Amino acid sequence: MEFTRVAKDTGCQARLGKIKTPHGEVSTPVFMPVGTQAAVKALTPEQVRGLGAEIILCNTYHLYLRPGHRLIADLGGLHRFMNWQGPILTDSGGFQIYSLGALRKITEEGTTFQSHIDGSRHFLCPESAVEIQEAFGSDIMMCLDECIAYPATREEAEKALGRTARWALRCRNSHRSERQALFGIIQGGVYPDLRRRGVEEIAAIGFDGYAIGGLSVGEPKELLLENLAATAPLLPEDRPRYLMGVGTPEDLVEGVYHGIDMFDCVMPTRSARNGLLFTNGEKVVIKNARYREDGSPIDSTCDCYTCQNYSRAYLRHLYVAGEILAMVLNTIHNLRYYLRLMERIREAIRGDRFRDFRDGFMRERTV
Amino acid sequence: MEFTRVAKDTGCQARLGKIKTPHGEVSTPVFMPVGTQAAVKALTPEQVRGLGAEIILCNTYHLYLRPGHRLIADLGGLHRFMNWQGPILTDSGGFQIYSLGALRKITEEGTTFQSHIDGSRHFLCPESAVEIQEAFGSDIMMCLDECIAYPATREEAEKALGRTARWALRCRNSHRSERQALFGIIQGGVYPDLRRRGVEEIAAIGFDGYAIGGLSVGEPKELLLENLAATAPLLPEDRPRYLMGVGTPEDLVEGVYHGIDMFDCVMPTRSARNGLLFTNGEKVVIKNARYREDGSPIDSTCDCYTCQNYSRAYLRHLYVAGEILAMVLNTIHNLRYYLRLMERIREAIRGDRFRDFRDGFMRERTV
Repeated sequence: MEFTRVAKDTGCQARLGKIKTPHGEVSTPVFMPVGTQAAVKALTPEQVRGLGAEIILCNTYHLYLRPGHRLIADLGGLHRFMNWQGPILTDSGGFQIYSLGALRKITEEGTTFQSHIDGSRHFLCPESAVEIQEAFGSDIMMCLDECIAYPATREEAEKALGRTARWALRCRNSHRSERQALFGIIQGGVYPDLRRRGVEEIAAIGFDGYAIGGLSVGEPKELLLENLAATAPLLPEDRPRYLMGVGTPEDLVEGVYHGIDMFDCVMPTRSARNGLLFTNGEKVVIKNARYREDGSPIDSTCDCYTCQNYSRAYLRHLYVAGEILAMVLNTIHNLRYYLRLMERIREAIRGDRFRDFRDGFMRERTV
Repeated sequence: MEFTRVAKDTGCQARLGKIKTPHGEVSTPVFMPVGTQAAVKALTPEQVRGLGAEIILCNTYHLYLRPGHRLIADLGGLHRFMNWQGPILTDSGGFQIYSLGALRKITEEGTTFQSHIDGSRHFLCPESAVEIQEAFGSDIMMCLDECIAYPATREEAEKALGRTARWALRCRNSHRSERQALFGIIQGGVYPDLRRRGVEEIAAIGFDGYAIGGLSVGEPKELLLENLAATAPLLPEDRPRYLMGVGTPEDLVEGVYHGIDMFDCVMPTRSARNGLLFTNGEKVVIKNARYREDGSPIDSTCDCYTCQNYSRAYLRHLYVAGEILAMVLNTIHNLRYYLRLMERIREAIRGDRFRDFRDGFMRERTV
C-alpha cells in the first residue's frame, strides 16, 4: 500500500490524498460503505461502485463466524467471494467482540467469546485476527484492539491502552502478507493525554496507517470532538488516518477538518433501511403521512438514481408496503449522499477552501 | 392495442405474435413478471427490463387499497409512479377478492370486501374495476370476474360463469379509454363444456384479448391441462390468449403448446425469496448444507448476472445470513430463468419445432 499526500488545506488540518492498493486507488478523504457480512446491505457491488464508492469495509467478527475465513480463502478470497473488485478494509473484530458484553472475556492472551448466532465458543487473539484477515485477502487489515465502554475510568482506559499497544506489536510481528497493509489503532477513551500516549506507543511500532478507535461509543459529542482534535493531528503525517465507525455527516466534516482521511459507518445504510433519508436540509422520515402525495424527489439537488426517478410518494408507498425495493432505493440515496459529501469535501480541499466549506456546512445544518 | 400473428407452429397450437401497446411492443408467447404493489419485488425496473421482461403485471386490488388509484392518477399514472416505461397489464382484483374468503360477499351488483390491511369496507363492481384501471393507465385491463374455489359443483361453476359474462358486458360498456385494451376472462371451473360456453359468451361481447381464469387454484394438474386443452384452442385466433396466474415452467410449455400467448405468475419471484432456484435440471434449495463450499454458479448454462458473478456458496451465505441481497440475486436468477425459457420457446416456434422442444423439455424434467 502506498499513501500520497496530494494537497493540504492551509486553513486547517484537512488534506487530500491517494491510497494505492493491489485492488485500485482510493481518493481521500474517503467514506467506506459497510458490507458487514460480505455484502453492502441491499445493493449489488456494481450499484455500490456506481455511487462512487472506491473502498468498502467488511467485518471480521461476522465473516469469521459465518461463512468462515477458511471457506472464503478456499473460494479465492473475499473479493472474489463477494464480487467486489475494489479495495477492501477489514476490521479486526475487536469492536464487535467488545459489543458482546457478557458473552466475552478478555485476557492478555486474547479474547474468548460466544457467537451471537449459535452460542459456540471462540478465541481470538492478535495473531489469529491477522491470520483471519490474511485469509480474507483484505487490502487493509486492522490490529486487534481492546475497546472500552463509555463511561470508563482513567484506570480502565489506561489498562486497555497498554494492552492495545502490546497486541499491536503482536499483530505487527505476525503479519506475513506483503500485499496487505496493516493499520494500528489508538485507544485511550476520552482522555486526551492517554490518546497522546496511544499515538506515541502505536506509532513507535510502525504501521501502514493509523486509526482512532473507541470514539462514537456513547460519549457526548463534545468529548468526541475534543478527543478527535487532540489525537488526529498527532498521527504520522505520511500515513492515512482513519476514524473508525464515525459517523454523522457533521462528524465527517469535523473529522476532515482535523486531518482524518478515512471513515466508515453503518449510519447511511442502516438509516436507509429504517426509512430515514439524508438531505442537505432536514432529514426525511419517509413513512410520514406528509409525503403521501408528494410528487417531488427526496432531494431535488441529489444526482442519485432514486432522486432522478422516484417521488417521495412512491418511496413512502414502498416503505409502508414493506417492499424490499424500498430498502434498495433508500440505501442508494443515503450512500450517494455520503459519497457525494466526500466529493464536495475533496473539491473544497483541492480549492484550499475547506475551512469555509466546513463553516457553511455547519451553519446550514444548525439552522 | 394491436395483435399480430407472426408464425404458427405446424405441429401444435403454438403461435408467435406481437402485441403493440402505447408503451411498446411485446413478443409473444410472453411471461409477465408480477409487480403486485407497483414493484417487482426486490428489483429496480432497469433490472427487470435487463432480464428481458417486456411487460409486467400489477394487482388492482393491492394498488386500489394502497396507495389508491386516485393518488396514482394524480402523480401521472402507474408507469410514471413506478418508473416502468414498458407496457403494464393490471388484473381486475377479482382473484384477490375471491382469495379473501370470509372477508368478502359477492352479489350481482358487485363485491363487498374488507381490506386485508386495515379491515376497512370497500365495494368493487365491474364499472369501478374498469374505472380504477383506467386511472392507473394500464395498457391492458382485465374485466372483473367471479372466481370459484376448487372443488366447486357444476352448479356453482355455472352460476359464476353466467355472472362473469354479465359482468364482462358491464365492463365493456363502461370502458372509456381508447388507449387502453380490455380483456375478457373465461371461467367455468374444471368443466370443459362450461369453459366452451364461457368462450362463446365472452367472445360474443368482443374484447381485445381473452384470458382463461380460475385454473391453478388447487385442482389436480390433469384437470388444469384438460381444461386448458379444451379451452385455449376455442379462443378467437386473432386475439391474444392469456392463461392467468400460471405457472410452473412445465405449465408454460404446455400452455404454449395449446396456443396460449401470455402468462403471469408469482412463482419465480416468490420462490426466489424462499431460496428455491430454478435450473434446467433439479431445483436448487440454496440454504442446503451441500452448497456450503460449492464454488459453482446456480446453473452453469445460465446467462444471468447472478450466475455470471456468484457462487452457490456465496448465495447460500447471503440467504442464511438474512441479507437483502440474497432476495435480489435470487430473483434475478429465477426471473431470467423464466424469461429465457420464453426466449427458447419463441425460437422453437420460429423454427417450427416447438413440438420437439416441448417433448424434450418434458423428458428432461421427469428424468
